[in-house]
Amino acid sequence: MQDTRQPAFVLVRPQMGENIGAAARAMWNFGLDRMRVVSPRDGWPNERAVALASGAGRLLDHAGLYEDVAGAIGDCTYVFATTARPRGMTTPIVTPERAMQQARAMLEAGGKVAVLFGPERAGLENADIARANAIISVPVNPDFPSLNLAQCVLLCAYEFRRAGDTTPPEVMEMAGTDFATGAELAALGDHIETRLTEAGFFFPEGKAPAMRQNLRQIWGRLPLTRADVQTFHGMFRQMVRWAEGKRPKG
Amino acid sequence: MQDTRQPAFVLVRPQMGENIGAAARAMWNFGLDRMRVVSPRDGWPNERAVALASGAGRLLDHAGLYEDVAGAIGDCTYVFATTARPRGMTTPIVTPERAMQQARAMLEAGGKVAVLFGPERAGLENADIARANAIISVPVNPDFPSLNLAQCVLLCAYEFRRAGDTTPPEVMEMAGTDFATGAELAALGDHIETRLTEAGFFFPEGKAPAMRQNLRQIWGRLPLTRADVQTFHGMFRQMVRWAEGKRPKG
Repeated sequence: MQDTRQPAFVLVRPQMGENIGAAARAMWNFGLDRMRVVSPRDGWPNERAVALASGAGRLLDHAGLYEDVAGAIGDCTYVFATTARPRGMTTPIVTPERAMQQARAMLEAGGKVAVLFGPERAGLENADIARANAIISVPVNPDFPSLNLAQCVLLCAYEFRRAGDTTPPEVMEMAGTDFATGAELAALGDHIETRLTEAGFFFPEGKAPAMRQNLRQIWGRLPLTRADVQTFHGMFRQMVRWAEGKRPKG
Repeated sequence: MQDTRQPAFVLVRPQMGENIGAAARAMWNFGLDRMRVVSPRDGWPNERAVALASGAGRLLDHAGLYEDVAGAIGDCTYVFATTARPRGMTTPIVTPERAMQQARAMLEAGGKVAVLFGPERAGLENADIARANAIISVPVNPDFPSLNLAQCVLLCAYEFRRAGDTTPPEVMEMAGTDFATGAELAALGDHIETRLTEAGFFFPEGKAPAMRQNLRQIWGRLPLTRADVQTFHGMFRQMVRWAEGKRPKG
């Protein structure tokens, strides 16, 4: 289900194989599968990376291996660099959301986009950042800004997917959900009001109109399904049956 | 720099201490520090969690420990459940972005919000999800949807922080509305279930467990106010009083 047009995620001098594997998983979680790796510390292929990538191992098999950043981005028309601390450079700083919206737009227009991720400890060097057209800065807690490699990859992949996403922000799961109609709710309200009147619920008399009004508002406001309405009818029917001493067998 | 008003992130039956530690880090990366833990598999405190939390160990020191989900959300007015696969429930499904916008709005209005995260392998059980007002579904790659615990925590914490960067586009109408807490809803459910049991509602016996489950889901799902809860208590108390022939004067 990967996008045919997607950015390359470039891991620059990654150290731990575990983190490379976790990054592959994070990418594939959001449908991205174009990984490039620049001089990984422990060589290539990396067994620990493969072990940790589990279901996303294919990304490692197909990853491009490069000696330096220049080679890894040689075919790209626009490059983002991720860094926790922008370091006084004359480069636009964008949020992950904005960056991935831009990436999608450029890809649609036929561009080739890369996102650079630095080594775990030190992050990208200034020389790497200088090759980028823009800096992605994740809005982290300044008291605890240390995102790890796979987390940073995860957030960027998530934002790329979100930028193309047509998922409505909120849906009521409708499968098998059949909301009650106004008439059904009114009938339910009438039924319950009748039962409660018989039961002496609306007491004292001076407060009865307000109590009735309040009860009617409840039925109008709650998102009751048809099944809920039947349940409520049944509850009150049964309270009456019980009260009349006609308990069902069993 | 933590927000003074923030959701509680509830780890439900977490398994690996490493993942609890990583979840603490992910929360604190985005300024959240209210963690609750429900019956962690390996007991509490957990050494592996502490080792992995590094700079976020304070969250573990202050985490609330609970025996069950009901206890962990007892003071909460709105509960989100995170799950990869919504399972045919009549519950709104929201994106992480929308959920955290809603959470922020409800917190601003004085509500208390919890987000449930399931155990690593199996995720939340239906009984846990039934206690939630809404389901958070991350728009993952359907071919590879397996987000780990800390990643799911990370995305929600990220979205909560992001939601504070701008005015939420939509606010639930909260002014003057005092929603019932989880404990109040649980007490209402128990009360009604007791009355209906006495009244012989759960019949035939073979269907009783499903009927009880269905009824509990209703109370978890409906946005009942404190006043609504009192009204429902009163309705059932009165049905009993009436049944016992003790009608009030007048």
